[in-house]
Amino acid sequence: MVHEIYHNYPPPLTPEQEEYLVQTVKNWSIEHALAVRPSSAIVSEEANPNHVLATNAPVTLFPSPFSKSCFDQARSLQKTYNELYAAIASDEEWLERVMEELFEVDDFLANLWKIHLAVKEEGYVQNMSLGLFRSDYMLDAPDDSRGPPSLKQVEFNTISSSFGGLASLVTEMHTHLATYPSQGHPVAYPRHPLFGNSPDKLPSIKSIGHPPHNTAVPTLTAGLAAAHEAYGSSKSRPSLPTCILFLVQDTERNIFDQLALSTHLYKEHKIPSFRLPTSKILALTSIPRTDTNRARPLIYTPPSSPSIQYEVTVVYFRALYAPSEYDGPTSWAARHHLERSAAIKCPSILLHLSGSKKVQQVLTSRPPGPDHLKFFLPDHPTAALDKLRSTFAPQYALSPTPESSDSANPDTNTETKTDTDTDTDTDTDTKTDTEHEDIESEGIRLALSETTAANHVLKPQREGGGNNIYRTNIPPFLNSIPRSQWKQYILMELIRPPPAAKNTVLRSDGHVVHGNVVSELGIFGTCLWRNTPIHGASGSGSGSKRPKILHNTEGGFLLRTKGKENDEGGVAAGFSSLDSLILYEES
Amino acid sequence: MVHEIYHNYPPPLTPEQEEYLVQTVKNWSIEHALAVRPSSAIVSEEANPNHVLATNAPVTLFPSPFSKSCFDQARSLQKTYNELYAAIASDEEWLERVMEELFEVDDFLANLWKIHLAVKEEGYVQNMSLGLFRSDYMLDAPDDSRGPPSLKQVEFNTISSSFGGLASLVTEMHTHLATYPSQGHPVAYPRHPLFGNSPDKLPSIKSIGHPPHNTAVPTLTAGLAAAHEAYGSSKSRPSLPTCILFLVQDTERNIFDQLALSTHLYKEHKIPSFRLPTSKILALTSIPRTDTNRARPLIYTPPSSPSIQYEVTVVYFRALYAPSEYDGPTSWAARHHLERSAAIKCPSILLHLSGSKKVQQVLTSRPPGPDHLKFFLPDHPTAALDKLRSTFAPQYALSPTPESSDSANPDTNTETKTDTDTDTDTDTDTKTDTEHEDIESEGIRLALSETTAANHVLKPQREGGGNNIYRTNIPPFLNSIPRSQWKQYILMELIRPPPAAKNTVLRSDGHVVHGNVVSELGIFGTCLWRNTPIHGASGSGSGSKRPKILHNTEGGFLLRTKGKENDEGGVAAGFSSLDSLILYEES
Repeated sequence: MVHEIYHNYPPPLTPEQEEYLVQTVKNWSIEHALAVRPSSAIVSEEANPNHVLATNAPVTLFPSPFSKSCFDQARSLQKTYNELYAAIASDEEWLERVMEELFEVDDFLANLWKIHLAVKEEGYVQNMSLGLFRSDYMLDAPDDSRGPPSLKQVEFNTISSSFGGLASLVTEMHTHLATYPSQGHPVAYPRHPLFGNSPDKLPSIKSIGHPPHNTAVPTLTAGLAAAHEAYGSSKSRPSLPTCILFLVQDTERNIFDQLALSTHLYKEHKIPSFRLPTSKILALTSIPRTDTNRARPLIYTPPSSPSIQYEVTVVYFRALYAPSEYDGPTSWAARHHLERSAAIKCPSILLHLSGSKKVQQVLTSRPPGPDHLKFFLPDHPTAALDKLRSTFAPQYALSPTPESSDSANPDTNTETKTDTDTDTDTDTDTKTDTEHEDIESEGIRLALSETTAANHVLKPQREGGGNNIYRTNIPPFLNSIPRSQWKQYILMELIRPPPAAKNTVLRSDGHVVHGNVVSELGIFGTCLWRNTPIHGASGSGSGSKRPKILHNTEGGFLLRTKGKENDEGGVAAGFSSLDSLILYEES
Repeated sequence: MVHEIYHNYPPPLTPEQEEYLVQTVKNWSIEHALAVRPSSAIVSEEANPNHVLATNAPVTLFPSPFSKSCFDQARSLQKTYNELYAAIASDEEWLERVMEELFEVDDFLANLWKIHLAVKEEGYVQNMSLGLFRSDYMLDAPDDSRGPPSLKQVEFNTISSSFGGLASLVTEMHTHLATYPSQGHPVAYPRHPLFGNSPDKLPSIKSIGHPPHNTAVPTLTAGLAAAHEAYGSSKSRPSLPTCILFLVQDTERNIFDQLALSTHLYKEHKIPSFRLPTSKILALTSIPRTDTNRARPLIYTPPSSPSIQYEVTVVYFRALYAPSEYDGPTSWAARHHLERSAAIKCPSILLHLSGSKKVQQVLTSRPPGPDHLKFFLPDHPTAALDKLRSTFAPQYALSPTPESSDSANPDTNTETKTDTDTDTDTDTDTKTDTEHEDIESEGIRLALSETTAANHVLKPQREGGGNNIYRTNIPPFLNSIPRSQWKQYILMELIRPPPAAKNTVLRSDGHVVHGNVVSELGIFGTCLWRNTPIHGASGSGSGSKRPKILHNTEGGFLLRTKGKENDEGGVAAGFSSLDSLILYEES
């Protein structure tokens, strides 16, 4: 079935058709700010001394086919995932148990944790947290399987989930190309069964003919607005006008993705926001001395207009997610400064840490091991949790000795688990009970054997991507680093995307590349919640650690498509491209 | 008064303020497609081989102050000007009398005329014409005058009136900068009396604080839509879907200005349009043989989708206005091909010719010379015509011998002229009756004397700009060309713009330039009319030559601002910049 979809897709183009399509995409991109600032690999610094130039974001010329049932499944899980990560970030003790062995070997994670402890010691003054999330999936379509593909989660992003703005634009562009001037006879695309306008039919396939509407921008913006409203009035005396800060990298090239949000935030919600480069956090923001104001409002002074100050309701991190961004004590001081303020952080440090690969790996544990899903989401029916679980790819810690199977189990009281839970074993990749006991050492075994390593990817715990080790590179890599550092990595079984998928990409340098591709679907969601007090709450039981959800939404998607020769993602870096999807269902 | 306006404007900026403002403008421009493709002077061909790069259009950082009464006056005249040029373009005989001596010396004008004659001979099959006009003005503020400045027309554009799209965006940007996040405390602009937010006041000045709304895009688009509707249903058998063609230059860099119109045309009016480079007119459009279809519909075949054809309702010329674009017989054949088709031309050749400087100069004639305004607009009250006339700058033909004062007078019957007409002489620059008799030779006298030439500009008849000769360069230039070619030029008294006007420009290469500036206001208007039949109508009287106006609107504006060291316009070429205006009135 799946192969039938890709048989003649994307439709072949004559040179005239390709020229017209490429020219249309080039112009449409700039007209609608589906754009990035070019890297110095595309335009040298000498040729672009004032940084005025822009170019199209790397995009596919066609939307990629995607199973409607998998897309619907991913959407249907998002609000549960949002709630799960809200619960994780609210449970400091659980997080510490999961992460603590990493703190010994990973300065980045250890420093984040230290900031959390320091602010906890001083006392948090903001108990609300905001997550703008993106849950990323791939389709798993094993060669020997005749059934439909299944959905596997690649990662859950809790900080700086990007491309909501540009992904909406790609969707709009592909829709334009497929329907202008009419869906029956578009001028930019040849007719094709997947566009619903060809006399040829794919007998068992139904398609709606163009990408589904993409609501990423209003969804993410509404999340920011909800937090802004929940913050309430100014805590300064005299009171100040309020704003949201977009914390950005000094050399950001993906700026138009961010501006799509800030512009919509002002247009739809009348909320002003300002861009703050990380290098200027300490110069342009301040917190009044606590002996004058114990509320610790975060005050922003626009460099262009120092006579008027704003109180920051929400700090939206589009920076400071990667270790490489912390280039000295000043960076850490800036992060600490923001964390201790009264502004709602998107994300807080605990939420940032919750997005680590280690948490994702620990969550895959299932009865008879600790059932973390049931613990964090006690009010959800087992079937709902099983749906979530079905998207977990097999993954393993590389701890040299097996962890106690309940090391991260915060709740030895298993009264909420039913008998049926332990028998629910529909996931074909689930290990048997005896295997579970030894799951960590199994990870090492799989990673060191060239044969088994060939089906795996080794991922560092840290955020930001770019350092994954693939397949047979894994054993020599592990052997090249001290064994004590192995626990910084998670081994994940590689997902087997549909092998026949093809597309054509217009890169940011204007080159057009055809070939086999792999796509990754991201679903956007937002969650705002109130934490139970962390400081001073001695002996809090598990119940007291649940977040009170104030806003929980799903909406919008990103499809990133990369050439098969590339193992790494990262659209802004030019390795992969922004895509949208054309849904099909097997009828 | 006028000097008070410019005294402290634009407001001085600290380095931090300028950096913030420039960065904001750079990003806003790309985010909203206030953009152009960079010239090879900005990015070399080698650095931009696939032509993907874009940069901001050259823009002023601040809107320029402009007298509200002059702005209102310019707007109030537009519909009358539209009607005037519709009437001129409908009167072939009058045009021929005015232009014929130029045909001897100007191949470009002569070839256009030949096409008209050839189509006339075959018989026109389309009697409707569309004008998307822009009437350009400057403020005349003589040093010795203490009164308010007056409005003087620079030219009236009848073909390819550009920058409606980008001008709307500059207006929007300046409004954003002046009002974000609030008009009381913008972050990008310092407070200033002209923004209505400063404790300092200009005692005698009222300002609305931000630029007036700019409706250029909906206005121009509605003009195209009106013509599309008036064209009616397909004249092809079997009938074809209809479209509008945007005729564009092959190497167009001002593309996003054009796309603003075509995108709006589809969004608001559901009318498809396609871009047709001039080099492909003959390859991609055709007219059925007249023995199969006498209606001569213009058929467009999209290169990307040759299986479906469109019938063209309107050909919108954003090209073929300048002699340099006609590089051989094929260009002329293409123009002829379009002119003889049933598509409504925007503009027709007669309307194109009506925009020549010679026509503008002849129109300045007044009683006791021929009163062309009264002739073309017989139903307008004298006061309305005088208002139009008050915007004429003194200008002169350079004919070696005085023309007969009624050489272009189509109507020797002066019964419509009242006695008061000849006495209406409020224009301080108007010549006396005796001077009028010798007006052409006076042009030569003024042009050849270095003293008087210093107050004048010599303009070629042709469209497209770029070849004006200024001030003391005029006498040596005239002496360097054969005297027989002098009649290709019009001598126009230079308008004296407010000398204290200043602004800051962000060029397309990212350089920021401060200095004294000169601004030119363009008012957009559209007119659709039906001509009385030209072919076969023997002995038509003056009455039969009046157009039947079907659509006549005014809306939107362009302010172009250039550094005072530059005498030439042309924003896309980087010499001048796009601006908007901040209106003031003296209270």
